[in-house]
Amino acid sequence: MRQQLAEWDQAGREQAAIRAAEQHLMQPWPAAEDIGAEARMYLEQAEGIMVEDGAGNRLIDGPAGMWCVNLGHRHEGIARVLYNQAMELSYCSPWYTMSKQAVELSQRLAAHAPGDLNHVFFTTGGSSAVETALRFMQFYNNVLGRPEKKRIVTRGGAYHGSTYLSASMNARPRDGDWMDQARDLVLHLSEPKPAPGLDAAGQRALTARLAQEFRDLIAREGAASIGAFVAEPVQASGGVVIAPEGYLREMRQICAEHDILYISDEVVTAFGRLGHVFASEAVFGIQPDMITFAKGVTAGYFPLGGVMISERLLERIRQSNHPEACFAHGLTYTSHPIGCAVALKVLDLLEAGDLERVRRLEPLFRARLESLRDLPIVKEVRSIGLMACVELATGKSDAASLAIEQKMGKRVDLHCQKLGLLVRPLINMCVISPPFIIDEAVIERMVAILREGILATIADLQAEGELPG
Amino acid sequence: MRQQLAEWDQAGREQAAIRAAEQHLMQPWPAAEDIGAEARMYLEQAEGIMVEDGAGNRLIDGPAGMWCVNLGHRHEGIARVLYNQAMELSYCSPWYTMSKQAVELSQRLAAHAPGDLNHVFFTTGGSSAVETALRFMQFYNNVLGRPEKKRIVTRGGAYHGSTYLSASMNARPRDGDWMDQARDLVLHLSEPKPAPGLDAAGQRALTARLAQEFRDLIAREGAASIGAFVAEPVQASGGVVIAPEGYLREMRQICAEHDILYISDEVVTAFGRLGHVFASEAVFGIQPDMITFAKGVTAGYFPLGGVMISERLLERIRQSNHPEACFAHGLTYTSHPIGCAVALKVLDLLEAGDLERVRRLEPLFRARLESLRDLPIVKEVRSIGLMACVELATGKSDAASLAIEQKMGKRVDLHCQKLGLLVRPLINMCVISPPFIIDEAVIERMVAILREGILATIADLQAEGELPG
Repeated sequence: MRQQLAEWDQAGREQAAIRAAEQHLMQPWPAAEDIGAEARMYLEQAEGIMVEDGAGNRLIDGPAGMWCVNLGHRHEGIARVLYNQAMELSYCSPWYTMSKQAVELSQRLAAHAPGDLNHVFFTTGGSSAVETALRFMQFYNNVLGRPEKKRIVTRGGAYHGSTYLSASMNARPRDGDWMDQARDLVLHLSEPKPAPGLDAAGQRALTARLAQEFRDLIAREGAASIGAFVAEPVQASGGVVIAPEGYLREMRQICAEHDILYISDEVVTAFGRLGHVFASEAVFGIQPDMITFAKGVTAGYFPLGGVMISERLLERIRQSNHPEACFAHGLTYTSHPIGCAVALKVLDLLEAGDLERVRRLEPLFRARLESLRDLPIVKEVRSIGLMACVELATGKSDAASLAIEQKMGKRVDLHCQKLGLLVRPLINMCVISPPFIIDEAVIERMVAILREGILATIADLQAEGELPG
Repeated sequence: MRQQLAEWDQAGREQAAIRAAEQHLMQPWPAAEDIGAEARMYLEQAEGIMVEDGAGNRLIDGPAGMWCVNLGHRHEGIARVLYNQAMELSYCSPWYTMSKQAVELSQRLAAHAPGDLNHVFFTTGGSSAVETALRFMQFYNNVLGRPEKKRIVTRGGAYHGSTYLSASMNARPRDGDWMDQARDLVLHLSEPKPAPGLDAAGQRALTARLAQEFRDLIAREGAASIGAFVAEPVQASGGVVIAPEGYLREMRQICAEHDILYISDEVVTAFGRLGHVFASEAVFGIQPDMITFAKGVTAGYFPLGGVMISERLLERIRQSNHPEACFAHGLTYTSHPIGCAVALKVLDLLEAGDLERVRRLEPLFRARLESLRDLPIVKEVRSIGLMACVELATGKSDAASLAIEQKMGKRVDLHCQKLGLLVRPLINMCVISPPFIIDEAVIERMVAILREGILATIADLQAEGELPG
C-alpha cells in the first residue's frame, strides 16, 4: 500500500517525496492549518557552498544550513572522521565510561575558553546546552541553600531553544503566542537594539539606559530571586542584533555584583562565526560564568552541543554542605565519541586557517552588504563576523504597509532562489551567514543576487501599487 | 601549559586521560563532592559485543552502552552509511528544506507504527522526543481552546529524560531531590510493580487497583485539567518493571474516555529490544496517541529520536478555529539526513533478521537469568525481550541491611568487570540489555559471570559479617 520512495526513478522522486512528506514527515514550526500536511524544498545533494534542489538547480547556501554548515557540504575529511571513529569506538556510556575523544576535546575547549571556564558538559545541541546551563544554575543554588534564587533574565528578541525551559527564554515577536512558557521563572528586559545609524554618544546613552533597566529590575524583584542572566552576544535569529558598545560588559558587571550567573549563549557565535572559537572575551571583552555552544562545533555534521562551566562554580559546589547532592542530569548521547571526534577535526580546521579567514573576509563582507543601503526598501544592514541581516521596510507605518513588510523577506528569498541564492528570510529581514569557505568572488556574487532580488521585489510591489513607481 | 592527550604514548594515555578528565570533562549525574573533578572508566575501542578498557581488558557490553548499541560496536555497514551520507547531503535545514532520507524514514516508520500514528517529528534523542510530545500536547490544547488541560500524569519509578520538563516526569527514588521540577504540571500515580511471583489473579487485582487509582485521580483533579498520561511500556531505568497483565490496556482506555493523550515512551522498548520496531501494540495491545523513540533507532551511532503522532490529532488542529497558530517547535538537527540514513540502515538490519533473532533468543535469555533465583541474595529476576533486571536484597529490612543493599549492584558490577562483563548497576539492581547480536553461548557466559559475581559479593558480605556465613 505505502510506496517506498526508493522505488521511484529520479524523475518522479521529487514529486513522490513531496507527497510522502505531506503524509508522514512533520516539519518544524508548522502553522495549524497545514500541520503534518506540508512539504518543504526537496534537497538531494550538496557540495562546498552549494546545495542542489530536486530539479538540479544549484544555489549558494546563504544561511549555511542553520548557521552551522560552516566548513561546507561534502567535506571528505569530516566524512572520513565519521567512518573512522565509528570503526574505533562508536559509542560509550558517559554514565560509567569515557572516551579519548571526549577527554581530548574537553582539554582543547578549555584552552580556548576565557578565564576559568575549564570544564565542559556535552549535550546534543543548543537547546540541551541551554537546558544544561539553566538546570546547573538551579542545582547550584539548591546546594548553596538558596532555592529561591532561580529566576532567569532574558531580553526582547532573544532565541535560546526549543525545549520548554529553554524556549521560555525566547522573546521574539509571536514566539510564545501558542506555546506554553514557564512564565513564573522568567524576567524580561528590552531588546538591546540601537536605532539605525546611532552614533557613538547615542550608543553609550543606550547602554546606560539598558544597564539602568537591569539595575531597576533587580531592585524591584530582588537579587535573591534571580539566578541567571542569559544572552546571545549577538542576537542571531532575532535578526543579527548587535548590542550597543559596552552593553555586554555592563551587564556582566551587574551580574557579578548580585551573584547572578551570566550565561553567554554562543550557539551561533562560537566556532568561528565571529572569527574566534569563543567570541565572549575575544570580541566582546567579557568572561561569562557559562558559555553554551552547538552548531558550528561539528559544522552541522553531528548533533553536539555543550556548556563551558567556571571552575569557581564547581568548587563552590564541592565545598558545600551537601557532598551527596546529585546533579541528576545527563543525556544518553552526552560526550558521544563520534561527535567529539568530528569536533576535534573541526577545531583542527578552524585553527589551521578558517578562523583567520573569517577575520580576513569580515571587512569586505560588511562593506559589500552595506552597499545595499542605497536601495529604497533597505532600512538597515547589520553585520559582524560572517553574519549579517538586511532589514527591509516600506518607509511607512500604516497597517497595510506593515502587512507588506511581514512578507518582504519571503518575497526577496523567492527571487534570490531563482537567481541561485538561498536566503534565510525572517519576517522583513534577510539573514546571511555563509560557510566560512566562501571567498571574495562569492561574496560579490551573493550581494549582487541580493541586490537583484530586492530590486525585483520593489518592481513587484510597484506593479501591485504597494510602492510608488 | 596544557598537555594534549594525543601527545602521550599508549602506555601513559589512560593515566593522562584520567587526569585531563578530572580537570576538564564534566560527567553526567555527578555527586556534589567531586563534581567536575572525577574520571570514569577509560575506553579506547570496541568491536561487536565487546568493549576494551585502557589496560586492554575485553568485557561483554551487558547494557549495550545505554540500551542503545543494539547491533554491536564497529559495524562496518553503519560506518559506511555515515561516510556515504556525509558525502551526499550532510545537512539541510528542516526550516525550509527536506532530504530524501528523512522522507523515506518517515514512510517506513509510519508503516511500522500502530493505528493512525502516521506522522513523525524527529529530534536528537529521548529527552527532546518527550519534550516534543509534551509541548505538542500543550499546543494542541491551546489551539482547541482548553488551555487548562495541561497537567501530565506520571508513575512511580518512571524515567523520561533530562530536560526540565521531561525530567519533571521522573519519579525514581532521589531523582528530584536536588533538581527543580515543574511540580505544578505533574500528577503522580503508583509504580505498576507486581510483587515477586504474583499469580494471575493477583496481577488482575493489582491492575484493577491501579486503574481505580487513575480514575480516582481524574475524579479528584478533573479531566479538564489533565492533558496527557506518559508511560514507558516497561519501566527501564526504574529496574525493568513489567506492569501487571492488562494494566496498559486499562490505562489506555481510561485516557480515551477522558480525552487525555496517551504518550507511550518507547525510547528503550522500540527498535527491537522487545522483538518489534514498536512494542506498544505488538507486545502490549495498545494504540497510543503518540510514541516517543530514540536510542535503538540509530543503534547508538548518531543522536536521533522522535515522536510518532496520530493523524487524528493533527486533523483536529488543522480543523480548529486558529489556522494561523504556529507550533513554534523544532531543533537545528530535526530530520538530520545522516541520522535518518543511519536509521534506514538500522531498519534494514532489524527487518532482515535482528527482530526475529530477539524473539528467538528471548525464552533462553529469560530462562538462564531466572536460573539465578536459587542464589540467596537474588530477590527477583524480571525479564522481557532482551532486557532483564536481577534485583538483590539481604532478606532483612533493618537500616544496616538497607544500607548494604544500596551498594549491592555496584559490588556485583565490580566483580563481574574483573570476570569480563560490564553490568549496569542501579542501587540494588543489575540491569542487562545486551546487543541483539549475542548468541546462545554468550548468554550462557553472561549468566555464568553474573552468578560468579553474585557469589563473590555474598562471600565478601559474609567475610565482613554482613551476611550469615
